[in-house]
Amino acid sequence: MTEDKMHSEGKIWIFDKAYISEFVYGGIDGAITTFAVVAGAAGAQAEIYYVLLFGFANLIADGFSMSVGNFFSVKTERDNFEKHKQVEYWEIEHLREHEVQEIREIYAAKGLTGQLLEDVVKVITSDKDVWVDTMMKEELEMSKETKAPLNTAFATFVSFNVVGIIPLLSYVIALIFDLNESRLFLISCIATGIALMIVGYLKSYVTEKPWVRGVLETVLLGGLAAVFAYFVGEVLAGWFT
Amino acid sequence: MTEDKMHSEGKIWIFDKAYISEFVYGGIDGAITTFAVVAGAAGAQAEIYYVLLFGFANLIADGFSMSVGNFFSVKTERDNFEKHKQVEYWEIEHLREHEVQEIREIYAAKGLTGQLLEDVVKVITSDKDVWVDTMMKEELEMSKETKAPLNTAFATFVSFNVVGIIPLLSYVIALIFDLNESRLFLISCIATGIALMIVGYLKSYVTEKPWVRGVLETVLLGGLAAVFAYFVGEVLAGWFT
Repeated sequence: MTEDKMHSEGKIWIFDKAYISEFVYGGIDGAITTFAVVAGAAGAQAEIYYVLLFGFANLIADGFSMSVGNFFSVKTERDNFEKHKQVEYWEIEHLREHEVQEIREIYAAKGLTGQLLEDVVKVITSDKDVWVDTMMKEELEMSKETKAPLNTAFATFVSFNVVGIIPLLSYVIALIFDLNESRLFLISCIATGIALMIVGYLKSYVTEKPWVRGVLETVLLGGLAAVFAYFVGEVLAGWFT
Repeated sequence: MTEDKMHSEGKIWIFDKAYISEFVYGGIDGAITTFAVVAGAAGAQAEIYYVLLFGFANLIADGFSMSVGNFFSVKTERDNFEKHKQVEYWEIEHLREHEVQEIREIYAAKGLTGQLLEDVVKVITSDKDVWVDTMMKEELEMSKETKAPLNTAFATFVSFNVVGIIPLLSYVIALIFDLNESRLFLISCIATGIALMIVGYLKSYVTEKPWVRGVLETVLLGGLAAVFAYFVGEVLAGWFT
């Protein structure tokens, strides 16, 4: 495997890998939160009304909170990178000798000694930008967050809602067309299973693992979560009736 | 601000900052997902039974899925670091000249030239571990994920459930003691508000921002999500009755 190939795997179609990641994790969370409502209702044999009520309440509230949470998390990462960078600039102004010594230690650890070490330290500390950049990478091991918070939040919100509505669709359709369909939960399970397979397939691009593993992991995760919700519904319904 | 002070902020009491982060984000998500159920039910004037049914179904299903998702995400980050590291070891064996040139370019960009540059390249490429470590930091800008996936998943699961059960507590207590209390939603709002304030306060340690901001952001986020859920409940109840 060449490095160029590895780097090119970061792109899929027209999307940047960065936003696939938000799409994948937003989608999985959206599907699982509404599928939990559907499964809990099925376990308790609750009416369609309650599936839609709690399904949409969770879809909107969780989708909102997840995307806003994502916005703050990405923004904080960017802010902290800048903050630490400013601290380094401040330190090379005010604690110059200490910071020169840190550069010396970084390169001594790489095996440089004597005059060679001193010459390298001199070159690096002669340019403040190079100096700070070297400290960020070698000492703090911080890398710049390049994603834009508004974009990641938007990608999260869209995928949370688009994928998250899938478990509810059979109930919505049955209601609109006044269908007397007893297999709504089964249809929802199949639709959610297919959605999780697609999202799991995309997940393998993000995680750089075999696609079979992405699909199986995601479907199993959603399936098990729904089983737990189903039994909570069944047990609570048993207590109350 | 000195660097030592900044680094010491990473520790709070006996906890490692790493796990505070999982506690904070697990707790916020747990509280918001069950508070959405409570608020949706309040908007629709649904019975206690449905609050508990969908509250616990979501708490268990989402708590499980979030912590397993966290496990895979941290594990994948660690795996990918190791994978890229192995690729670099492979490349310095099989594409030696290409990789030597990459080291040369990295140090030329720092301002090193002529014999000094060649001497530095020679020292760094004489030790494979130093060589790969330099490529990981300077070229790929990847830093090692030091958190253990099982620990982060466990911290997420515990905080999701411990904080997430708070919005449901007034309903559980009313049911157990058979209380005829009409202000259950109000009590839940107050309890959830206090919980979000505490988690928001802890969040400011993770984000390194003022605590006032951590508290306000978190309480507003949970509050707005609940307002959305409340109106979904109210609107759906209006349609159905």
